Amino acid sequence: KRPWRIAVIPGDGIGQEVVPQGLRVIEAAATRFDIALQIEHFDFASCDYYLRHGSMLPEDWKEQLDGFDAIFFGAVGWPEKVPDHISLWGSLLQFRREFDQYVNLRPARLMPGLRSPLAGLQPGDIDLLIVRENTEGEYSNAGGRLFAGTPREMAMQETVMTRVGVDRVLHDAFNQAARRPRKLLTSATKSNGISITMPYWDERVRAVAAEHPQVRWNQFHIDALCARLVQRPQEFDVIVGSNLFGDILSDLAPALCGTLGIAPSANLNPERLHPSLFEPVHGSAPDIAGRGLANPIGQIWSAALMFDFLGHPKAHDAIVQAIEGVLDPRSGAPRTPDLGGSASTQDMGRAVAQAV
Amino acid sequence: KRPWRIAVIPGDGIGQEVVPQGLRVIEAAATRFDIALQIEHFDFASCDYYLRHGSMLPEDWKEQLDGFDAIFFGAVGWPEKVPDHISLWGSLLQFRREFDQYVNLRPARLMPGLRSPLAGLQPGDIDLLIVRENTEGEYSNAGGRLFAGTPREMAMQETVMTRVGVDRVLHDAFNQAARRPRKLLTSATKSNGISITMPYWDERVRAVAAEHPQVRWNQFHIDALCARLVQRPQEFDVIVGSNLFGDILSDLAPALCGTLGIAPSANLNPERLHPSLFEPVHGSAPDIAGRGLANPIGQIWSAALMFDFLGHPKAHDAIVQAIEGVLDPRSGAPRTPDLGGSASTQDMGRAVAQAV
Ligand SMILES: CC(C)[C@H](C(=O)O)[C@@H](O)C(=O)O
Ligand SMILES: CC(C)[C@H](C(=O)O)[C@@H](O)C(=O)O
Repeated sequence: KRPWRIAVIPGDGIGQEVVPQGLRVIEAAATRFDIALQIEHFDFASCDYYLRHGSMLPEDWKEQLDGFDAIFFGAVGWPEKVPDHISLWGSLLQFRREFDQYVNLRPARLMPGLRSPLAGLQPGDIDLLIVRENTEGEYSNAGGRLFAGTPREMAMQETVMTRVGVDRVLHDAFNQAARRPRKLLTSATKSNGISITMPYWDERVRAVAAEHPQVRWNQFHIDALCARLVQRPQEFDVIVGSNLFGDILSDLAPALCGTLGIAPSANLNPERLHPSLFEPVHGSAPDIAGRGLANPIGQIWSAALMFDFLGHPKAHDAIVQAIEGVLDPRSGAPRTPDLGGSASTQDMGRAVAQAV
Repeated sequence: KRPWRIAVIPGDGIGQEVVPQGLRVIEAAATRFDIALQIEHFDFASCDYYLRHGSMLPEDWKEQLDGFDAIFFGAVGWPEKVPDHISLWGSLLQFRREFDQYVNLRPARLMPGLRSPLAGLQPGDIDLLIVRENTEGEYSNAGGRLFAGTPREMAMQETVMTRVGVDRVLHDAFNQAARRPRKLLTSATKSNGISITMPYWDERVRAVAAEHPQVRWNQFHIDALCARLVQRPQEFDVIVGSNLFGDILSDLAPALCGTLGIAPSANLNPERLHPSLFEPVHGSAPDIAGRGLANPIGQIWSAALMFDFLGHPKAHDAIVQAIEGVLDPRSGAPRTPDLGGSASTQDMGRAVAQAV
């Protein structure tokens, strides 16, 4: 069987620091479970690349990447060098859309050794999977300006929800929920205020739910859902949301679990027609970049999700166990400053790799 | 001087229960500060009205209401009777837009006697004012469906940001910040993902900020902002956001202050060409309606905001002090179940009215 082809793109800022630690763990797991990998490195999709070439990606980026099974991605963005909407739309958001990575999975768990900002929670009390629509919705990029530069100036942007786009991510979310003990799916909506696209979303949720009778489901408006998540996070299991709502929830949920530094994500093209992309939820954090302060766990957990998607659940489980072991304060393992420790990105990465 | 004309619209669900308590406090404050009021009651803008008349409002609602100085509003919506987007767009969202109530002020404060779900916070640690754009943005209502009923079906909705609409609420937000001790304004954005309207919002923030040099300002993407609010709510003072982002933040912030039941809001037409509207942030809560369980403080605090807007800051301050006194557990005053007590809506309303 041919080796899995992995494209590595560290991107900007702390992406450059956490990706090597992710790779260290990937290599440890590949050795332990005898998984053949072929790894290639790319320097595009970074603001420095943009400053040298005038674009975030080479012309033939699709051809260069399309034969890979997975992209192991760091983070992109450095607003002082390139405006965010240019750097992001020129790279990460292109990948998600052009490679049709329509399911974005973002687990968030209160692990032992993490301190939730919420009072009185035990490890395990938060155990969420956010399923985010990843190719359309509020991120459509369709729209423009009128009367620019005059007092009548206006900007318009279209939210686009297609039946194909909505149904496929909903089916995936129901399937994810069906695999979990609680089998509960919550839909994030805002159909009381956003009066056209969101009622459509609700309509499709009802239709798709009928095909998944084994899953219980409910829905909350996004405002009430954010409130409820800080009041009773225990009540939620899988949450599915549009591109924007999934984005918001998948930052809020890990924050409730103690740090954004450990949150992973999988941008999946379930049909495997194109590479899927694995990246931490956190961004490039220019403010702390280059100082060894970044928590590498989000990147490492993303590696675990990659192994799972490639069909190696044991490698996934071993990495997640190693993460849990290192996070457990009784292990005495090194911790980065966001977790109250003083260890470096490298120290923590090394500890997880050794545990694997 | 003529009496202030107040239109009272209780609406649906617990709106029917909390509005009478708000009125009780309004009357107490009017008596104490010798403020002449002329109060009229309206039964439209409720789902029961809709079931009787086939629309949420009478044809001439604008003429009926336009001479009032203020609308004292409860809550609207009862999805089992009327779909939310019909009841809300047929009433509250109409009022906001047609009466050009473009500034929505939503204070959130961790008051003595409230228990934040966040660990380790003291009263006063959260002291936020959310300023929400209230007439355009994501709530434009412009859009539609294509290929309905076929597999190619899609729904589209336009976010619309005008220079007039954005600038006026930003100016108001900077002015609000200038009046507060910390003089800090945070702009909620998402210009890295929502690539047309949100960069426009950022551009106007920079332009308007230049006219308010006495205010410090910063900006966060909405995902990071929700995360930061649960991690370090102390860092924020005034936050300005689009219609949707303001909506989300103004549910999250009061949830962090212990309960949505006390959060008030003022929907202002600052030019006073049309009535302004004062309502609690919470909804009609059909699940608990009719049982005397609702916390009336959100409604009562909204009455305080109304007096402030009408030019009676002393009445405002007296009501807020009365609220703080009743919430303080040392007062022994009755508390509704959301605050851990077993008092009724009426008991709590009576206690505040007496304190005023
Ligand atoms: C009921 C709903 C339409 C409304 C809104 O989204 O504006 C509410 O959530 C609010 O915050 O006032
Ligand atoms: C960087 C940004 C465009 C991106 C998004 O909004 O999708 C990020 O917040 C994420 O969650 O992956």
